[in-house]
Amino acid sequence: MQTAFLFDLDGTLVDSVYQHVMAWTEALVTEGIELSIWRVHRKIGMSGGLLTNMLLRETAGMNLDPARIERVQRLHAKAYVKHAKDIKPLPGARELLAALTESKIPWAIATSSRMETARPVLETLGIDFARVALVTRDEVEHAKPDPDLFVAAANKLGVAMEHAFVVGDAVWDMLAARRARCLGVGLLSGGYGQEELERAGAYRVYEDPADLLLHLDEVGGRR
Amino acid sequence: MQTAFLFDLDGTLVDSVYQHVMAWTEALVTEGIELSIWRVHRKIGMSGGLLTNMLLRETAGMNLDPARIERVQRLHAKAYVKHAKDIKPLPGARELLAALTESKIPWAIATSSRMETARPVLETLGIDFARVALVTRDEVEHAKPDPDLFVAAANKLGVAMEHAFVVGDAVWDMLAARRARCLGVGLLSGGYGQEELERAGAYRVYEDPADLLLHLDEVGGRR
Repeated sequence: MQTAFLFDLDGTLVDSVYQHVMAWTEALVTEGIELSIWRVHRKIGMSGGLLTNMLLRETAGMNLDPARIERVQRLHAKAYVKHAKDIKPLPGARELLAALTESKIPWAIATSSRMETARPVLETLGIDFARVALVTRDEVEHAKPDPDLFVAAANKLGVAMEHAFVVGDAVWDMLAARRARCLGVGLLSGGYGQEELERAGAYRVYEDPADLLLHLDEVGGRR
Repeated sequence: MQTAFLFDLDGTLVDSVYQHVMAWTEALVTEGIELSIWRVHRKIGMSGGLLTNMLLRETAGMNLDPARIERVQRLHAKAYVKHAKDIKPLPGARELLAALTESKIPWAIATSSRMETARPVLETLGIDFARVALVTRDEVEHAKPDPDLFVAAANKLGVAMEHAFVVGDAVWDMLAARRARCLGVGLLSGGYGQEELERAGAYRVYEDPADLLLHLDEVGGRR
């Protein structure tokens, strides 16, 4: 059975979750919406529209009109640029991707971000945009926790979902993985707790890409 | 049996954990120390010296000399001021403290921060500094996860440790509570997962101060 790896981006390959948390919080405050920051953190990784809608429905019992959701997303993108300049790859991220390539194990990146937001951090990973299988929010109708991004990524690789691992830091990655019939591998590097990821269905949980690389044989990464 | 409540401050009464995370990260980067941000998050609530030392020992296997630890702490305090201006009380924090006061249930605040750092956020809570039992890092030899802060807070109130609940958002609050022979009540508002707090010994876990107020009868807050 040939394994393939479908990676989330933020919090999984690059250390950018906390910057996204602060940028979403700023965007919501600018729109006059006050939410506790931990609630924003727990929604990172979802599509931006869904994140905004869910936060408001859960905490204020209100639905936003589409124009306001669009505005919050634009404010987030603007605030994020300010925080994004110091974002770095997570320990072992480049080495993990290089090891998979060298072992001829197919891998792809599937992110709920739009290309505009994802490009600068993808560049820190030294990604060759012409060669790497990459799916962003722009290419699918629904982002996570819907499975579309991972299904599209597997299609780009030409691998079957049932042979693929999804690697992500968020509960939403694990839920999307299960809907896509992939196995989910959780990483703690986005700030979720181990048990949260396990309860969302993670097959295994590691600290970060470096720790996953060290244990790659546990998840079919035969080298 | 008369109950008393000993509160942590950051992430428990005020929404300031993520600002501390970013400030510690900036301070460490300025000192040339690169650490993943989630690792910093998981140490918030400890004494600053211990936090710096533990992060480095765990990840780089190195001990810092005291002068450098002192410098990182000063850099954190400086960076935190920049992030602190928008910090707000967590939902229900003022109401919870007012309800306890009204019911003549003793309560105190015990924080690993120094007064210099804690004062601005205490002010957002409308604390009367002349009347409230308050213990900061300045008054004890060891901060959390040592029990000194909570022991000092119970002493100020004149209550027995065995009758007190410690309310906190961090694993370090729960560990310090157990060492002090208090029961720990965990809050999710600092960004830890429910299971992490439970595994550290939390007697009960609530979302935030508003949720604790709603369930106060479960933890002896008879009104």
